[in-house]
Amino acid sequence: MIRKRLFSPGPTPIPPEALAAMARPIIYHRSPEFEAVQAEVREGLKYVFQTQNEVILMAASGTGAMEAAVVNTLARGDRALVIRGGKFGERWGEICKGYGIPFEAIDVEWGKAADPARVADALRRLPDARAVLATHSETSTGVLHDLQAIAEVVRPTPAVLVADCVTSLGVTDVPTDAWGLDVVVSGSQKALMLPPGLAFCALSEKAWAAAGRSDLPKFYFNLAAERKSLLKNQNAFTPAVSLVVALRETLARIRAEGLPNVFARHERLAAATRAGVQALGCALFSERPTPAATAATPPAGIEASAIVKTLRTEHGITIAGGQDRLKGKIFRISHMGYVDGTDVIAVLGALERTLARLGAPVRLGEGVRAAQEILLK
Amino acid sequence: MIRKRLFSPGPTPIPPEALAAMARPIIYHRSPEFEAVQAEVREGLKYVFQTQNEVILMAASGTGAMEAAVVNTLARGDRALVIRGGKFGERWGEICKGYGIPFEAIDVEWGKAADPARVADALRRLPDARAVLATHSETSTGVLHDLQAIAEVVRPTPAVLVADCVTSLGVTDVPTDAWGLDVVVSGSQKALMLPPGLAFCALSEKAWAAAGRSDLPKFYFNLAAERKSLLKNQNAFTPAVSLVVALRETLARIRAEGLPNVFARHERLAAATRAGVQALGCALFSERPTPAATAATPPAGIEASAIVKTLRTEHGITIAGGQDRLKGKIFRISHMGYVDGTDVIAVLGALERTLARLGAPVRLGEGVRAAQEILLK
Repeated sequence: MIRKRLFSPGPTPIPPEALAAMARPIIYHRSPEFEAVQAEVREGLKYVFQTQNEVILMAASGTGAMEAAVVNTLARGDRALVIRGGKFGERWGEICKGYGIPFEAIDVEWGKAADPARVADALRRLPDARAVLATHSETSTGVLHDLQAIAEVVRPTPAVLVADCVTSLGVTDVPTDAWGLDVVVSGSQKALMLPPGLAFCALSEKAWAAAGRSDLPKFYFNLAAERKSLLKNQNAFTPAVSLVVALRETLARIRAEGLPNVFARHERLAAATRAGVQALGCALFSERPTPAATAATPPAGIEASAIVKTLRTEHGITIAGGQDRLKGKIFRISHMGYVDGTDVIAVLGALERTLARLGAPVRLGEGVRAAQEILLK
Repeated sequence: MIRKRLFSPGPTPIPPEALAAMARPIIYHRSPEFEAVQAEVREGLKYVFQTQNEVILMAASGTGAMEAAVVNTLARGDRALVIRGGKFGERWGEICKGYGIPFEAIDVEWGKAADPARVADALRRLPDARAVLATHSETSTGVLHDLQAIAEVVRPTPAVLVADCVTSLGVTDVPTDAWGLDVVVSGSQKALMLPPGLAFCALSEKAWAAAGRSDLPKFYFNLAAERKSLLKNQNAFTPAVSLVVALRETLARIRAEGLPNVFARHERLAAATRAGVQALGCALFSERPTPAATAATPPAGIEASAIVKTLRTEHGITIAGGQDRLKGKIFRISHMGYVDGTDVIAVLGALERTLARLGAPVRLGEGVRAAQEILLK
């Protein structure tokens, strides 16, 4: 018998009170009972997004919220600046292509962090850019970009800063209002500890002003219509009721732990995981690692895909391989959401046995020991 | 103590095996385990949609699938013909407006069924129409439009027939291939007995050909990209994992009962409900009632909203009021999905007590008796 354990960078494990909430009989979304849930969720989201503005909920996966951010803040003919250093950065460009939005891209080598000075340069050359489409935590490469510095560069320009915070929100500090982030995009299946299917957009006043002049085609992703309904604790379209009900539970969990503690926990788990994989002869792939997930390359002679497969088949542990051009080259261990130190030791222990089985020259216990030292600090 | 019972026309009650499925630990969508679920779900959806073609799944509510149907089958400048006789018929027009699609509308009085001859006339006058956007079961008025007759009229023209079957699929016969329906749109929270958050589009060869020339802007709702992934049991974007896993359960339930039995059950429950409300002095609102939900006007002097409220507060029963221009004028009782004869008796019994309490001249037992006679047949 092996137990199954989930370390994929989304979906992430779901705490029992949220699983139980989804198993309760469903309620009608046009009812006082659901409106009370929605009211509570609105407040909880403002806490997690660290914003005074409404956080819009949509029944969609995170990509839907990315598209919503683009089609609500740009108008026909507006130019965008896309920062891309991974699969999700590239997605911003693909969305622009889908809508015929002219854009210039700042291409960042996968695994490296975007240089805010390049963003500043590009904005000087493109004074008509109306949006900067950025990634905070790039899940495909394991990089945490310096979103605060990018925000400082964008703030004085007419452009809105749209940030994919799908795997940074609830993982590391994302003070939406304090940093002046204009659109913060996120999804349910990461640090919010829910199944995929709910997506979020938090908009600043500057972004709502841009939305007011946006004339790109949209209907389902019309954020102004959603806000109008949300202010009455209703929804423009049928919401993903069971996920919203479960979201109330996970938001309460985050509030009970407290955001600073949540961030410190993720930082500690990430540091322990990084130390553990390095002690096992793996190298970190990213120069500025996100605390959401650790991306690593295996020791010489070992296939990343063999590690993923052996962990799954022999240890019941799901981690992720690389995507697109990183397929077969890296493996990724998530420590996002409902994860603690014992989970990190569990996955590192299994990784040790896996690497040993695959013939890597590991000294058993060394990966775990390196992690333990950090967890004990 | 009162128990809560749900008779809203979406969400509908969820059977225990589907609730239990959503309470199980979540699985990674890029895993052999999820791909096996997806493969099973693909086959089950083909059975329910009665089609040989792929049924595309999206993480969205039904409106998302309506939008997907429009933006994938029309090209810039293409004209549409919209049949609208209720809130959901009107939604087709709103989606067209959102995308700047020129359209002509056939307006049908709310509560009446669309006349296929008017559709034929309109298509003769508009030989360049490339899509007919229709509603099968109009949930807002309780009307079942004659989709088969409309399909016969559309089939010989260059237009694709796009049908909102959100509350007809799995309720009444929707033989997608046999009737030549080009796009059948549906959602999870109706006869598929799941929470909202999954939407579906089944496309005919004619519709896929239209998709091939479609150049309307899209990204999240790109059906060709979804089909390409689905054929590998994968998804273009993160799927609503927990709903897909639960869908496997409800599809198995539908297959076990058998579609003909499912349709006969809905027909019987609808007939019993119609007989019951009429015996209580209410009038049917729709001239061609859908077996999904019964829309009725209250006896003279009784407010529809008072019925809805009293059922909720005194009997724990959720039914729906009217929407938009029907607000306060009608009430709607769903008998869709995980509902049986005893449920119908329960809601009619509570309706009797409610009407009596509100001062309507009901003879206790008469509504239930009328329903019983039909259930016993």
